Amino acid sequence: MSRRPPLRIVEVGPRDGLQNEKSVVSTAVKVAFINRLSTTGLKEIEAGAFVRPDRVPQMADARKVFKRINRRRGVVYSALVPNERGLDAALEARADKIALFTAASETFNRRNINASIAESVERFRPVVRRAASAKLPLRAYISTAFWCPYEGRIPPRKALDVCLKLAEMGITELSIGDTIGKANPDEVRAFLGPALKKLKAPSIFLHFHDTYGMAVANALCAWEEFGISGFDSSAGGLGGCPYAPGASGNVATEDLLYAFKSSGGAVPAEPREVCAAARRLAPVLGHPLSSRLSRVLR
Amino acid sequence: MSRRPPLRIVEVGPRDGLQNEKSVVSTAVKVAFINRLSTTGLKEIEAGAFVRPDRVPQMADARKVFKRINRRRGVVYSALVPNERGLDAALEARADKIALFTAASETFNRRNINASIAESVERFRPVVRRAASAKLPLRAYISTAFWCPYEGRIPPRKALDVCLKLAEMGITELSIGDTIGKANPDEVRAFLGPALKKLKAPSIFLHFHDTYGMAVANALCAWEEFGISGFDSSAGGLGGCPYAPGASGNVATEDLLYAFKSSGGAVPAEPREVCAAARRLAPVLGHPLSSRLSRVLR
Repeated sequence: MSRRPPLRIVEVGPRDGLQNEKSVVSTAVKVAFINRLSTTGLKEIEAGAFVRPDRVPQMADARKVFKRINRRRGVVYSALVPNERGLDAALEARADKIALFTAASETFNRRNINASIAESVERFRPVVRRAASAKLPLRAYISTAFWCPYEGRIPPRKALDVCLKLAEMGITELSIGDTIGKANPDEVRAFLGPALKKLKAPSIFLHFHDTYGMAVANALCAWEEFGISGFDSSAGGLGGCPYAPGASGNVATEDLLYAFKSSGGAVPAEPREVCAAARRLAPVLGHPLSSRLSRVLR
Repeated sequence: MSRRPPLRIVEVGPRDGLQNEKSVVSTAVKVAFINRLSTTGLKEIEAGAFVRPDRVPQMADARKVFKRINRRRGVVYSALVPNERGLDAALEARADKIALFTAASETFNRRNINASIAESVERFRPVVRRAASAKLPLRAYISTAFWCPYEGRIPPRKALDVCLKLAEMGITELSIGDTIGKANPDEVRAFLGPALKKLKAPSIFLHFHDTYGMAVANALCAWEEFGISGFDSSAGGLGGCPYAPGASGNVATEDLLYAFKSSGGAVPAEPREVCAAARRLAPVLGHPLSSRLSRVLR
C-alpha cells in the first residue's frame, strides 16, 4: 500500500475561518460561500457552530445557514457543538456530523471553555451517546496539541493521552490542532511516531495554522513519512490566530491542495476553484486573502 | 557529523527582491535597508546588480548604493554581473563577491539573456579568470533549475549538467533556482540525490521562490535529508515572480530563519530583526510584505 494516500480535507473556512475574522459576515454571503465550496469537490465542510451567540457572534446565524444551504449529495456538512444544547440545535439543523472540542493544554482549556480537560471530556459523554444513537458521525478537536500560548510546548504524550481518552469513548475522528501555528516537522514526527502505534492513521486529522509559514511543510511531512491523509484547512486561508493578531489563519485549502497535487497526491478539488470560492469573500472581510495561490490569481 | 548544519543565508532582498518590485526605490532607502540588514547578523547581502539600466531600472544606482553603504566587518556585499563590463563596475564599486547567472532551461536563457546556456557559460570564462586574479569569490545562479515557464519540468540531469560545467570552470558556489516557485520536496530530492554524488553540499545554495507556498517545505527537506545549509532568501519576502504577476517573491528570510530556528537549527540572525529591516520598506513599496512573520508582527 502506498505511503501516500489520497488527500482528505475537512474544509473549516466557514467555521474556524470566519470565526476568527473580525468582520461579521452576512448569512447570505456564508450560504453562497458554502454552496460554492460544495461544488469544488470538497467532501466535508464545517458549516457552522452551535455555540453561545454572545460568545461567538459570527456563528449566531448557524441555524439559518444550515437551513438555506443547498445540500449537495456526497458532501458532509458538519457542525461544531460544545454540549448537549448545541447538539439539540445541530440535530434540528440536520447537521451530517458533529464536532466536539477540547485541548491538550490544561491552561488553554480552562481559559477557553472554563473546564479541565477531564471535565470537558466527561461532558462529551452524553453528546457522544446521543450522536451515536442518531447515527451521527463524530469528530473531536484537540487544540494546542503541539504548543500552547500559556504553557509553551505540549509533550506529545499529553496530547496522545487526550486522543486515547476520546478514542476509548468511541470518537473515531480526531483533529489534532496546532492552534498557534508553532509546530515544526520534528514535533509532528514526535507526535505521530507514538500516536500511530495506538491510533489508526485514517482516524487522525491534522489541523495546522499557518501563523509562521510552517503548515505546508508539516502537512507534507505527515503525509510523506507517516501516510496521514486527513487535514483541516480553510479556503483562502481565512481566519487568524487569536493569540497573534493579524497573523495568517488556518492553512489555506488551496495551498494545501497545491502542495499535495504537485507532490503527486490525489486531491479532492482543484486549488483554483477553492481559491475562487474564497476570493468572493475578500471584499466583505476587508483584507486580501492570505493564501499564496490567491496572490498568484489576484 | 550532524546532518543539520548551521544555516547560511545569502540575503537577496536588495537585488532579486527589489528588482522584482514595481516601485522604484530611492538610493537612500536602499542604503538604509542594506545597512539595517547588515546589523542583523546576516553574513552576505547581494547589494545590487551591474546590469543595463534601461533593462533593469531598479538597479541603475548600484554604484551609488555600493559607495554609500556602511560596510560592516564580516559581512560580504556581493553584486550580480552579466559580463566583463559588469565586472568592471563591480570591481570599481569594491563588491566583495561576484554573482553570474545562467539557466537550466534553454528557452528561458534565450528569452532572458538572448544566449544559449553554452554561450552564456562561455561568456563567464573571462569574468571568472579576472575575478580569480582579483581574488574575488564567485557564485553562479542557475535559474529555472526545476521548472521553466516555457519548457515545464526541467530534468534534474539537465540542471546538474549546467552545475558541473560551472564547477569545472572554478565557480565554487552554485545557487540552484526554483525561479517560478513550482518545485516540491520530491523534485528537490530528485536533484540533490544525484547532485551530491558530484558536488559538495557546501557549494550548493538553494534559491526558492514562495509563489505557491512550497519554499519552506523544500528548504527543510534539503536541510533535514541532505544536509544542505545554504539558502537564498529576501527580507520581507520582497519581490515577486515575473511569470505570475502579484505572486509572492523569494522565500522570506525571516520565515526561513523561523523555520530553521524552530527546527533546532543554528541561524545567523533573529527572524524579527530581519523582518523589522524589511518593514521599513513597506510604505515605499505600496503593498504589505508577504512574509508570514510580518503579519504576526504587524
